[in-house]
Amino acid sequence: MLAKTPNTPYYAVIFSTLRTSIDEGYMEMAEKMEELAKQQDGYLGIESARNEVGITVSYWASLDAILKWKNNAEHLEARKMGKELWYKKYQLRICKVEHEYGFKK
Amino acid sequence: MLAKTPNTPYYAVIFSTLRTSIDEGYMEMAEKMEELAKQQDGYLGIESARNEVGITVSYWASLDAILKWKNNAEHLEARKMGKELWYKKYQLRICKVEHEYGFKK
Repeated sequence: MLAKTPNTPYYAVIFSTLRTSIDEGYMEMAEKMEELAKQQDGYLGIESARNEVGITVSYWASLDAILKWKNNAEHLEARKMGKELWYKKYQLRICKVEHEYGFKK
Repeated sequence: MLAKTPNTPYYAVIFSTLRTSIDEGYMEMAEKMEELAKQQDGYLGIESARNEVGITVSYWASLDAILKWKNNAEHLEARKMGKELWYKKYQLRICKVEHEYGFKK
């Protein structure tokens, strides 16, 4: 599914990752965090794909909403486990979405 | 590979897609467009992954660089074919990357 986002401007968090070989607990935690993100104020949507590189883009109404999600206690604990166990490398980019175009058959 | 991008601010184009069942010519064109993008002024990097959803994020030095790439003749032709053949739906989001954090083991 592609995210249905509102008129610009809004915000995107691009989370690009390389995984370790440790799978234990990963999928469960990823699903848990996606469910938790959806419950946050200002959450607008999420898109995710993985091959060698994993890319998860979450969309938010404001920088403040992103900051609150960043400081969510369960999310902090998940990120700590992510660094210890599941991720070899990641980049997290916080962006202001200025323009959007869509195409649909 | 994750893209190595410069200090913020710079720009990102998030291209989120759902494919048709037509595979003919798709991979070849995707690779050709990635090679062509790399030759453009202001190109900074690219990250790509696909499962049900495909996400390709390209990074650029400026909005002007994105506009020039948008108007590149070969890219225009590829996008036309993309709409006719390969994509059922897509969203393209142009973003200003304001903050970036990295982690590496």
